[in-house]
Amino acid sequence: MKLDNKGLLVVISGPSGVGKGTVRQALFDRTGHDLAYSVSMTSRPKRVGEQEGVDYFFVTKEEFEQRIAEGKFLEYTSFVDNYYGTPLDKVNEQLEAGKEVVLEIEVNGATQVREKMKNAILIFIAPPTMDTLKERLHRRGTESEEIIQARCLKASKEVNLASQYDYIVVNDTVKNAADKIMAIIRSEHAKTNRCLDEYNKIIKEK
Amino acid sequence: MKLDNKGLLVVISGPSGVGKGTVRQALFDRTGHDLAYSVSMTSRPKRVGEQEGVDYFFVTKEEFEQRIAEGKFLEYTSFVDNYYGTPLDKVNEQLEAGKEVVLEIEVNGATQVREKMKNAILIFIAPPTMDTLKERLHRRGTESEEIIQARCLKASKEVNLASQYDYIVVNDTVKNAADKIMAIIRSEHAKTNRCLDEYNKIIKEK
Repeated sequence: MKLDNKGLLVVISGPSGVGKGTVRQALFDRTGHDLAYSVSMTSRPKRVGEQEGVDYFFVTKEEFEQRIAEGKFLEYTSFVDNYYGTPLDKVNEQLEAGKEVVLEIEVNGATQVREKMKNAILIFIAPPTMDTLKERLHRRGTESEEIIQARCLKASKEVNLASQYDYIVVNDTVKNAADKIMAIIRSEHAKTNRCLDEYNKIIKEK
Repeated sequence: MKLDNKGLLVVISGPSGVGKGTVRQALFDRTGHDLAYSVSMTSRPKRVGEQEGVDYFFVTKEEFEQRIAEGKFLEYTSFVDNYYGTPLDKVNEQLEAGKEVVLEIEVNGATQVREKMKNAILIFIAPPTMDTLKERLHRRGTESEEIIQARCLKASKEVNLASQYDYIVVNDTVKNAADKIMAIIRSEHAKTNRCLDEYNKIIKEK
């Protein structure tokens, strides 16, 4: 029995190349959960195999900037001349419907979320070693050497931001990381500050 | 991979009759955990089937009071003229050995633990309904009607103390409650304030 029936906003973030997307996918491949994925919006070109509304909502740079001006993002960032952001209206719709909303975003976006949603749960996905991270950045291989170098530099700064998060989950295996995130979600629902009101209703019933 | 390798002090408490002992037993019946149970000390008579050093350490009232005077308890309480307490030396030995120490104690003891050990995790076991709690108190049937009545009165006060705990876990089924406690323990190990030092070691390695 879950006392806290409200949906949680769960932010999965971490340095470039740590495997955030794979961990997120593993979470959603499980059965019996009540998670909703918040699809990000981007101005970067669609990669082979990516689908509109599944991997991202793809818009032009001009459309993205128009939406920034209108305050339509929970968070956004830019990297290598492209924007990435979380549409606020989609997140609110899902939270209001009682779903647990999972965001997989860049590290500077995560701190923007904390400012706007105090109750958000910020999870930092960490590499088991720095060597693993570097290997993964080189292995991705969908981009030019120049972009890989920029990503490595970015990652080496991003690993220092873990202290701003609520939890640090090591991505040693995708299964372990996903298990731990499910444990965190379950545990957060049992936190006294989230479920005291519901509990007080139980003890007042005859 | 667990960044935080220190043992946690996990306090399981809740109103009389809620099933704390059964939930604790279910936790320890699982395999693959690293939990150590802290056996309480009591001055009450041994019940049929109870074993010294397993269910409790049984001492006389005079011995118990001597130990209180010597500051040898992490917490203690008295009920129906008997003392119940947690020997401090045993808890420290286990924590130092890196074990997760589980205490199953009365509600007023839990707040004493918080004062002495800031990092302790306090879990309040709650009944799914007040009727369930009353039924359980009557069903126990090992004591006189007078003791049952005292226990009911005590329980009706104890249910109001949940707000002093970190988590509220409903004992709707013993399996659910035990699952949730395991999730809480796992989740607490991933908390940034517990594992940031270890994480910083990883990112400083070449």
